[in-house]
Amino acid sequence: MFKKILIVGCGLIGSSVLRGSFNRKISKKIFVYEKSKKNISKIKKINSKVIILKKLNNKISDIDFVILSTPMSQYERIIPYLNKFLSKKSIITDVGSTKQNVLNLKNKKLNKSLDWILSHPISGSEVSGPEYGTKNLFLNKWCIIVSDKNKSKVKKVIRFWKKLGSKVILMDPVEHDKIFSLTSHLPHLIAYNLIKTAQDFQKKHKKNVIKFSAGGLRDFSRIAASNEIMWRDVFFNNRKNMINAINMFIKNLNSFKKNILNLEDKNLRKKLINSKKVRKQIIDLKQDVSKPDFGRE
Amino acid sequence: MFKKILIVGCGLIGSSVLRGSFNRKISKKIFVYEKSKKNISKIKKINSKVIILKKLNNKISDIDFVILSTPMSQYERIIPYLNKFLSKKSIITDVGSTKQNVLNLKNKKLNKSLDWILSHPISGSEVSGPEYGTKNLFLNKWCIIVSDKNKSKVKKVIRFWKKLGSKVILMDPVEHDKIFSLTSHLPHLIAYNLIKTAQDFQKKHKKNVIKFSAGGLRDFSRIAASNEIMWRDVFFNNRKNMINAINMFIKNLNSFKKNILNLEDKNLRKKLINSKKVRKQIIDLKQDVSKPDFGRE
Repeated sequence: MFKKILIVGCGLIGSSVLRGSFNRKISKKIFVYEKSKKNISKIKKINSKVIILKKLNNKISDIDFVILSTPMSQYERIIPYLNKFLSKKSIITDVGSTKQNVLNLKNKKLNKSLDWILSHPISGSEVSGPEYGTKNLFLNKWCIIVSDKNKSKVKKVIRFWKKLGSKVILMDPVEHDKIFSLTSHLPHLIAYNLIKTAQDFQKKHKKNVIKFSAGGLRDFSRIAASNEIMWRDVFFNNRKNMINAINMFIKNLNSFKKNILNLEDKNLRKKLINSKKVRKQIIDLKQDVSKPDFGRE
Repeated sequence: MFKKILIVGCGLIGSSVLRGSFNRKISKKIFVYEKSKKNISKIKKINSKVIILKKLNNKISDIDFVILSTPMSQYERIIPYLNKFLSKKSIITDVGSTKQNVLNLKNKKLNKSLDWILSHPISGSEVSGPEYGTKNLFLNKWCIIVSDKNKSKVKKVIRFWKKLGSKVILMDPVEHDKIFSLTSHLPHLIAYNLIKTAQDFQKKHKKNVIKFSAGGLRDFSRIAASNEIMWRDVFFNNRKNMINAINMFIKNLNSFKKNILNLEDKNLRKKLINSKKVRKQIIDLKQDVSKPDFGRE
């Protein structure tokens, strides 16, 4: 499909692109640029054919396809290199979790002759690092592509993600950032906040509450173990939608608080019953496993 | 260990007690009282030796041990029957998620000659009904026992849960309700609230956001699919601690909001990094599986 692809940043997502691309023979050659020396030695073990770049420079010519899989806050630093060594035939994509900011950055900083088609694969995990990547990380997962004028290049990016197993959907960047503020960014913030609250409680009452976390807290701790650089970038980049989402959340929580305080049985039960429907939809849409308790233990 | 035990209410927890008791030969005879006809036919299939009671009455004599596993709001209705047909040799326990209210109810309504030792097994799931019970639901899980004057009966209750595989710990009821407001009750409310917020968002923006729930929302939907009667009872019974926990949570969330709004990098990252420690503790304490993403898929 490609002759030379370059993965910039090779953690969980980058190394999954790497493994998936080798496995599906997506490119004749695969280059990786990665800052962390510790990660480089792990990446070399993934496949002996991987070509590690020590620098991003114009000595590597004819790169067809670049996948940026660093934290989003690195993109600005990387663009000048892309401007230098890429040709107008190349395609750039990324895997960032917010899209309006990336689009703005691209419009401001990327050479007009270059094409960057924005992607967002909806797959990830609480673990970070190339050792956790898998060739099937994107299998049956959504990948959002932000539509662009260059139709033939959009098609190529779609083909790439489909080869990795993704279900692809085109989306407007404004809509994207709004939807994912609710389905992904707010849930992560809420998980972080719950764990922070448990830590504060533990300090205040000098009790080991973590010991009894199997009652529900443990689920949140998984999400709250996610990479802090990635999530700082997401929260900052999508801050307008985040603030709206937080406000909606607090409004609803105050309503629950009122229900509890005033023993409003009917109102409370209605909400508790309604949320079951969402679980059913999620399972019907195959967005989660259907086994109770995620099938763990 | 016992001659006759009686399980009152046989859903997920009751049927797990039933299966576990048969499997570990805990009692010569096992009686079940269950209101739902649909459930009764499911319970009969679990083990042909189970004796279904159509009424709670004094025709069944010499019950050694009663386990209340109905929703807590049913206890008050059941106590008069216990007063009628139990002898002072019998032991009563329950599996309720809050303890101060149960203790108060017991002190008010139960005959002084009878002994009720309060239990709270920390095990459950988002699914309800006897068909989901398992003989090992309590294996390696904590079971909290509220200490009581009758030491020999407390010992018997401890032995019972240990036979089912639980790790038993004694706790003061005030402390119990405080700790579990944080580790279990608040997480459940927060999950319900997040799903409610997603539903509101979906209505407002007329978008199918559930479709993209794999980014984090799906985890919360599991917890928010839990039984509404059980959780209404918990929220109402532990309302003082719930309100405190909600207030702490909102305070922290407002602080996160401020960090995001003002791009406070250092403060935000410190919190995001700190929560990783909790995940590590939870895994070290074997409160959750160590596989990324709960090992699902």
